[in-house]
Amino acid sequence: MYVPTFDDVLAAHERIKPYIHRTPVMTSATFDGMTGAKLFFKCENLQKAGAFKVRGATNAVFSLTEEEAKRGVVTHSSGNHALSLSRAASFRGISCTVVMPETAPQAKLDAVRGYGGEVITCAPSLQAREETLADLVERTGGNFVHPYNDHRVIAGQGTCSVELIDQVGALDAVIAPIGGGGMVSGTSLSMAALSTGTKVYAAEPKNADDAYRSFKAGHIIEDDAPDTVADGLKVSLRDLTFHIISNHVTDILTVTEEQIIEAMRLIWQRMKIVVEPSSAVTLAAIFAHPEIFEGKRVGVILTGGNVDLNKLPWLPKAA
Amino acid sequence: MYVPTFDDVLAAHERIKPYIHRTPVMTSATFDGMTGAKLFFKCENLQKAGAFKVRGATNAVFSLTEEEAKRGVVTHSSGNHALSLSRAASFRGISCTVVMPETAPQAKLDAVRGYGGEVITCAPSLQAREETLADLVERTGGNFVHPYNDHRVIAGQGTCSVELIDQVGALDAVIAPIGGGGMVSGTSLSMAALSTGTKVYAAEPKNADDAYRSFKAGHIIEDDAPDTVADGLKVSLRDLTFHIISNHVTDILTVTEEQIIEAMRLIWQRMKIVVEPSSAVTLAAIFAHPEIFEGKRVGVILTGGNVDLNKLPWLPKAA
Repeated sequence: MYVPTFDDVLAAHERIKPYIHRTPVMTSATFDGMTGAKLFFKCENLQKAGAFKVRGATNAVFSLTEEEAKRGVVTHSSGNHALSLSRAASFRGISCTVVMPETAPQAKLDAVRGYGGEVITCAPSLQAREETLADLVERTGGNFVHPYNDHRVIAGQGTCSVELIDQVGALDAVIAPIGGGGMVSGTSLSMAALSTGTKVYAAEPKNADDAYRSFKAGHIIEDDAPDTVADGLKVSLRDLTFHIISNHVTDILTVTEEQIIEAMRLIWQRMKIVVEPSSAVTLAAIFAHPEIFEGKRVGVILTGGNVDLNKLPWLPKAA
Repeated sequence: MYVPTFDDVLAAHERIKPYIHRTPVMTSATFDGMTGAKLFFKCENLQKAGAFKVRGATNAVFSLTEEEAKRGVVTHSSGNHALSLSRAASFRGISCTVVMPETAPQAKLDAVRGYGGEVITCAPSLQAREETLADLVERTGGNFVHPYNDHRVIAGQGTCSVELIDQVGALDAVIAPIGGGGMVSGTSLSMAALSTGTKVYAAEPKNADDAYRSFKAGHIIEDDAPDTVADGLKVSLRDLTFHIISNHVTDILTVTEEQIIEAMRLIWQRMKIVVEPSSAVTLAAIFAHPEIFEGKRVGVILTGGNVDLNKLPWLPKAA
């Protein structure tokens, strides 16, 4: 297991700069007033392809040697990572194949294809997914880019905090949502090098609190089938992200579905930006634990803005 | 009738700077690709109180002499102007009274009060509104700040384009929504001084096309009771705005309700920002008239982001 370093983060930043936005940092007098903290929102919802995932995926694709690149990249994901990997592969002019369950919504298949990716469907089970992927790698020699348990991906995600510190200066704390732990791991690497006094917090839905339980137990605990509105956060930690998080994170804070939805609605209403539920878990955690953040300068990573505008979680569900 | 000049705009900018945001300009590769134009979106939805109206209202309040200020300000409006005027008055420490129809939603009354304004309700007719306002002015000596037909308000709105040109340089065209014409008038003053080659376009809902018809006819035509999703654009031109617009605007482009709603949804989906329907009228007009804008550098004023998140126009109405 290769644990990436801050040098890897800096190299990633140089590598991906032509393909990503340096996203803006927003502030909110309203939320500062509500929390007593000074909050700096890093707006990865305004990132290319609508989420921070483009950072890690692009770094992985442009880290490949010419020989490796010829055989393309492969992954399994139905979300932002698949889009981002497809996009990066098309910039490099190589193939990208994504294994997705045959039950995935047509819109997600179309989105991957829209970014130039190829989709292979499989039965909707973990075993089918892993077998299909293994078969694909064996057949094509494609380079597998895991959505988060990959040192190139983690180094890429770390570039977000390099920009944040450059944009706003030293911070007392930073908070990011945790699913598989790629963003939190990358954030940890950057803060440890650039702003050593910054405490790193992760925010997680109570309904998918496997990272919280793993962190407290000292070993990885997997959730079977978590059910949360923050659908980007349903996955579990893996060895690499668990290692980095165990060593760097101060605490993991959990919040209810109601708290997530209310924070999401408030961000839309007051900041006038579109964020996905996973992004709102951070602000919800700050509202739920004001004593941790009061009087502090806090970085808040808004991870993405890809939502179905026809299905907003605060509205009654269509019959 | 005093017609404001560009010097008034510059004076307004110095006066209001401490109380407003210099809002960011966003670009969109997606919309550039769809239109063949290079679009620069001036994000007044990210302005204080969620709309450009804060510029003109703040300029009016801080233009008052000490003697005038003591008697406070008054207006009639149930929208963003009332909030903005209340906010500016509270910064100056003077009173602000808003005449609103007794049928106005409680949320709007609460919003004005939340910004420190006082509300006087009247019967929901034009006559009742004007009588109530006249009585209020006579009784208090308060300074009436019309939502748009006021040289101080127009000069304030013009500051938006001063920033835009400073941020992106010369433009071939600029387009703003038109209701009463305050923003389009201010934009015209600034462009005529700063970027003389810039053609000024206005965009208007077909369902409330009184400005279009007035512009073509050469005299003010009022709509009786226009019905459009762009509820900020239901009002009519007045003498001062009509005068400036007649002299400066190249054309007024009209769009259907469906075009407005689709452009609004696309802005949310692709740019990840919350804009109100009135703001989307501009992009809808560019989509509807690509031949005018193709190959051009175009400023697009996104005027505000105050929407009811429970009533989005692309969703089926709740029973």
